[in-house]
Amino acid sequence: MVVQRSMRLLLAAVVGILCVSYAVADEGMWTFDNPPRTRLKELYGFEPTKEWLDHVRLSSVRFNDGGSGAFVSADGLVITNHHVARGQLQKMSSPQKNYVAEGFYARTFAEELKATDLELNVLFGMQDVTARVMAAVKPGMSTKEAVDARKAVMAAISKESKEKTGLRADVVSLYQGGEYWLYTYKQYTDVRLVMAPEEKIAFYGGDADNFTYPRYDLDMAFFRVYENDKPVKVDHYFRWNAAGAADGELVFVSGHPGSTNRLQTYAQTEYQRDVAYPMTLKTLKRRLAVLNTYAARGGEQARQARGSIFGLENSLKAMTGEFGGLNDRETMAKKAAEEKDFRDRVMANPAWKAQYAWAWDSIGVAIERQRAKAATRSFRSVRSRLLSFATTLVQYVEEVKKPNGERLAPYQDANIEGTKFRLFSRAPVYLDLDEEQCVDGLRESLEALGPDEPFMKAVLRGKSPEALANELVRRSKLVDPAVRRQLLEGGEQAVTASDDPAIVLARIIEPMNRETRAWEEKNISGLITKASEKLGEARFAVYGKTAYPDATFTLRLSYGTVKGYPMNGTIAPAKTTLFGLYDRAYSFDMKGDFDLPQRYLDRIGSVDLKTPVNFVSTCDIIGGNSGSPVINAKGEYVGLIFDGNIESLPGRFLYSEKANRAVSVHSAYIIHSLRTLYDAAPLADELEGK
Amino acid sequence: MVVQRSMRLLLAAVVGILCVSYAVADEGMWTFDNPPRTRLKELYGFEPTKEWLDHVRLSSVRFNDGGSGAFVSADGLVITNHHVARGQLQKMSSPQKNYVAEGFYARTFAEELKATDLELNVLFGMQDVTARVMAAVKPGMSTKEAVDARKAVMAAISKESKEKTGLRADVVSLYQGGEYWLYTYKQYTDVRLVMAPEEKIAFYGGDADNFTYPRYDLDMAFFRVYENDKPVKVDHYFRWNAAGAADGELVFVSGHPGSTNRLQTYAQTEYQRDVAYPMTLKTLKRRLAVLNTYAARGGEQARQARGSIFGLENSLKAMTGEFGGLNDRETMAKKAAEEKDFRDRVMANPAWKAQYAWAWDSIGVAIERQRAKAATRSFRSVRSRLLSFATTLVQYVEEVKKPNGERLAPYQDANIEGTKFRLFSRAPVYLDLDEEQCVDGLRESLEALGPDEPFMKAVLRGKSPEALANELVRRSKLVDPAVRRQLLEGGEQAVTASDDPAIVLARIIEPMNRETRAWEEKNISGLITKASEKLGEARFAVYGKTAYPDATFTLRLSYGTVKGYPMNGTIAPAKTTLFGLYDRAYSFDMKGDFDLPQRYLDRIGSVDLKTPVNFVSTCDIIGGNSGSPVINAKGEYVGLIFDGNIESLPGRFLYSEKANRAVSVHSAYIIHSLRTLYDAAPLADELEGK
Repeated sequence: MVVQRSMRLLLAAVVGILCVSYAVADEGMWTFDNPPRTRLKELYGFEPTKEWLDHVRLSSVRFNDGGSGAFVSADGLVITNHHVARGQLQKMSSPQKNYVAEGFYARTFAEELKATDLELNVLFGMQDVTARVMAAVKPGMSTKEAVDARKAVMAAISKESKEKTGLRADVVSLYQGGEYWLYTYKQYTDVRLVMAPEEKIAFYGGDADNFTYPRYDLDMAFFRVYENDKPVKVDHYFRWNAAGAADGELVFVSGHPGSTNRLQTYAQTEYQRDVAYPMTLKTLKRRLAVLNTYAARGGEQARQARGSIFGLENSLKAMTGEFGGLNDRETMAKKAAEEKDFRDRVMANPAWKAQYAWAWDSIGVAIERQRAKAATRSFRSVRSRLLSFATTLVQYVEEVKKPNGERLAPYQDANIEGTKFRLFSRAPVYLDLDEEQCVDGLRESLEALGPDEPFMKAVLRGKSPEALANELVRRSKLVDPAVRRQLLEGGEQAVTASDDPAIVLARIIEPMNRETRAWEEKNISGLITKASEKLGEARFAVYGKTAYPDATFTLRLSYGTVKGYPMNGTIAPAKTTLFGLYDRAYSFDMKGDFDLPQRYLDRIGSVDLKTPVNFVSTCDIIGGNSGSPVINAKGEYVGLIFDGNIESLPGRFLYSEKANRAVSVHSAYIIHSLRTLYDAAPLADELEGK
Repeated sequence: MVVQRSMRLLLAAVVGILCVSYAVADEGMWTFDNPPRTRLKELYGFEPTKEWLDHVRLSSVRFNDGGSGAFVSADGLVITNHHVARGQLQKMSSPQKNYVAEGFYARTFAEELKATDLELNVLFGMQDVTARVMAAVKPGMSTKEAVDARKAVMAAISKESKEKTGLRADVVSLYQGGEYWLYTYKQYTDVRLVMAPEEKIAFYGGDADNFTYPRYDLDMAFFRVYENDKPVKVDHYFRWNAAGAADGELVFVSGHPGSTNRLQTYAQTEYQRDVAYPMTLKTLKRRLAVLNTYAARGGEQARQARGSIFGLENSLKAMTGEFGGLNDRETMAKKAAEEKDFRDRVMANPAWKAQYAWAWDSIGVAIERQRAKAATRSFRSVRSRLLSFATTLVQYVEEVKKPNGERLAPYQDANIEGTKFRLFSRAPVYLDLDEEQCVDGLRESLEALGPDEPFMKAVLRGKSPEALANELVRRSKLVDPAVRRQLLEGGEQAVTASDDPAIVLARIIEPMNRETRAWEEKNISGLITKASEKLGEARFAVYGKTAYPDATFTLRLSYGTVKGYPMNGTIAPAKTTLFGLYDRAYSFDMKGDFDLPQRYLDRIGSVDLKTPVNFVSTCDIIGGNSGSPVINAKGEYVGLIFDGNIESLPGRFLYSEKANRAVSVHSAYIIHSLRTLYDAAPLADELEGK
């Protein structure tokens, strides 16, 4: 599954976003201001017009939960993956009604169900603000002054834009700070569920088949965007093409890849391999064990834990594949060769050498510090949903006192509404589960840091992990969204006076974390940012702007061909069919994750078994692209991205043209299943414009 | 495909058959005198009785073309693979009737078609003759004297047995000469074709799917054995079980694995990796290119070349997988560790050390000589079917003059009938193709050896490869079996007087080859045989007789479980279904090797798509096992071995328990296809004993 993964440990360990030097084959996640025109023309004879690009951009949707989607009707109908919708389906469910497992279909607008706290964004505007950001940093400024000045001007740009347009406004840093862009987004927060199939068919094959192909998943979900309690009318949406794309056809993916680390220095990549990944994999396995134990207690516990188990298994499988890439000699040799070429060119030019050569050494120093601090950085935290609400409240009252430009990002004017939206979410908190996870997190930190470590001492205050977690989870009132709202509205005074145990703990932790962040900004991330910026500059100097920036969960365009690939001694076909779904089910005697919903058995006689189910293309994607539309050269909707194959996983660090494939649900299967299996002909008609 | 491969280069390079030290998991190709009783009892609670073993042995059939088979009715019906039958189908075909491509079915005995030159063997008797063979070698004999004495006593044993019983009698060397056994075989040479499906469904997925799984092949063919022009009545045959074996069930394979090299010394294995495999792979690719060029000329040329192309592609894919194993660090490390354990135990015991330690050094010396002679040994040959007839004739008249015990093996009394059977075969010789292959073989030798090399000079006699090949192929009369018979009957005088260009060339080549063989026997193979025998003895001393010998194309019993396995990031199921066959066909839009016979499209309505097609088990097999029966603990027929998965290929050198799987046609598919697709209900009835 190509979901954007939430990886506290990993993201903490990876700082600095780098661009790639040159793109080969169908490589690249391109910004819409700089599509790979030359390659598209040379390889495919295709020249995207401004209208084409604008239409694709405005039809593309970001799911802020961590995925992508697309408008597919004039009435604000949006399609994404079931696994992108899963979090919302879970939040809308109750012990009585499990929308994740059972699915949902609204036959009329009136039946559509409002999602709990789902925010969708559409990229309305893009403006290059590099000059203004750069100008704010004056010669002679110290690193700290430069960082502050940059932060301030970025906040100012966002604020001005937001005041002028009312749109969400983010200043995004691309090419390691080689460019800064103002991205403005139309925000939608009234989003209603239209249709989702059963999990067992959406995620057919479960964890075993995840990140593999051939595949047979109906990983789809439909929402509708509302404004003023009415379906929004959109000018831009993708027209449906139920024939799909042919083998060998040019296709595009327009979506929101979360993050890549393709042009880290070799030393940074080694750090990932030697420190960050082994540590993270170990932690994820531990968390998964806690969840599985909890889920084994009963049906309701299983329901509550299911979403987190899915997420952890998905992360584990993805990271195991990525880690495999890091341990693959060929991959690492290629990375080393790329760095050598870059470095040699810099060193061969005296001016470049003087300007840029120090950056590699500087990153080396930072990495050594990272190594020394790895355990502290990773384990100085307490895992609890209630505590995360408390932390937001404690940070909020502190940050809003500051000028906009000096605040932490979530509390800047441009972002603060979204932060509140999430804080006030009515999504259920599973207290038993929260407690279990909190206890285990404390134990894990204790094992890693020891009881005398200052953070641990301050947090535990002589209590056992069990006692602390119990008090935190059982006595806190923050489970109630109204209480959270009250506290926020009460401001600093209310938060400071609160004796809610979560708030109390957050007041202890936050100053310590603030200090840690400051130290790290100065000694690690600041160093890396500065050096990475230089390397970004060096790359522009050496290779020109022929490249795409690393992924940043902003809108990107990938391109490629529908094409099979060599697999495990044979070849994988470009597409699969419904015959294959039934084959896999009967091959496993309908056991485990390979059983079929009853409707698939009852209606096999009406189903056209030749219907294409999933297909692959060479498009370059990664987690966050889940739910992205696959479109043909005419801009028609031909598929729904939901995964990368196992061979694509090392793509986080290095794109490989050999067997990297993006896996999509075929447009024909979506229509056919709606009509013949889900009695949802009206929805199919809406898609097909009938 | 698990066919026994004809590999001149490789077999020339691999001398000495070694036994394995200890068997783990479901490892081993066991002789019927020494089944793994302890493991079967411990792992599966199964104890084979003498009756069970005798029944299985006498129901098993060797296809001397290089495969295995089984009796499956009292009326002498034998089942094997389509790809084992392929050579005979090709020989029975003509430009007008292509049995390979179109298949065949005889509804009555009268319609059954006699195979051109097919010999089947059934292992009737097994007798340990180690003591007698060992006794023939007297203390104080030189190596040459010992070799000759052993050869003589083995020939005598065979001859006596043959005279007494009339059965074919082979003295086989097992455990590197640690044991010698007299194997007596019932020979059948009147074998008639009963049924074969179309190649495209037997070998569904072609070279791409070969040696892979999941799989969907109907790789079967039926023959009937005749004696005195009547179907033979057999007491022992396998009862059919159309339900097949369940996931997790214990199964056995009784067949004829061709050769393994599992307990070569590490140095020998390195030689394979560094010299033999790279050289052989290069040659095979070159030969394949010649065949493909020839086949591209037209339909009839394609038909002629098809069988050889199949064989070469199969060898290339198998050897590429084996070569992968040789280049895998883990595999080689495991081999090194096994050798170290063995060697350490030998060295720790002073008596063993004195007796055995020299053997490793001796093999090392031989390998160095092998390295130096590699090119000469491989390229001193001329490739032509006509020349091979001529060589047999020239050798024949020379050898029959000698006492039986001193002859080359094919001309000893026990084997000479088989040699004549093949020499007089009425199988067509494709002259255009023979000429092409001869020219390219000469060119290849010329490139490797140079024009001044003595062998090349003697062969070419100033002619160009083209001129020589043309003269050889176009002017030789040996294409006519009657001419070959005439020459043989004319004896030495006729052969010496012949001016047939093939005979003339054979008379030039044979003395040179004889000299080379003598030199090699003294300096390489003799050395290796002697040292390997010592290592075989050492193994018995160190580990006891807990092992199985390397494969020698004699009858063996393997055991294992029906079980899926981890594959390419997911899991492969234990079986596949007909749904999957149609999926693969429609996934590839019926293109290339993935199209289906018209009957599969016309009759899809009558087919039960849930029918199991192929399945996998952990049984330990290799080329030569093709066509072997898979039987359950009750001795019932549940499947037809036709392949190993890609992960099993390094098994030539080292068994891996992780993902090694044998691939079989499911007994249910055989029955279901005969009944619903091939209108062959009488044959299905015969199998099911109805």
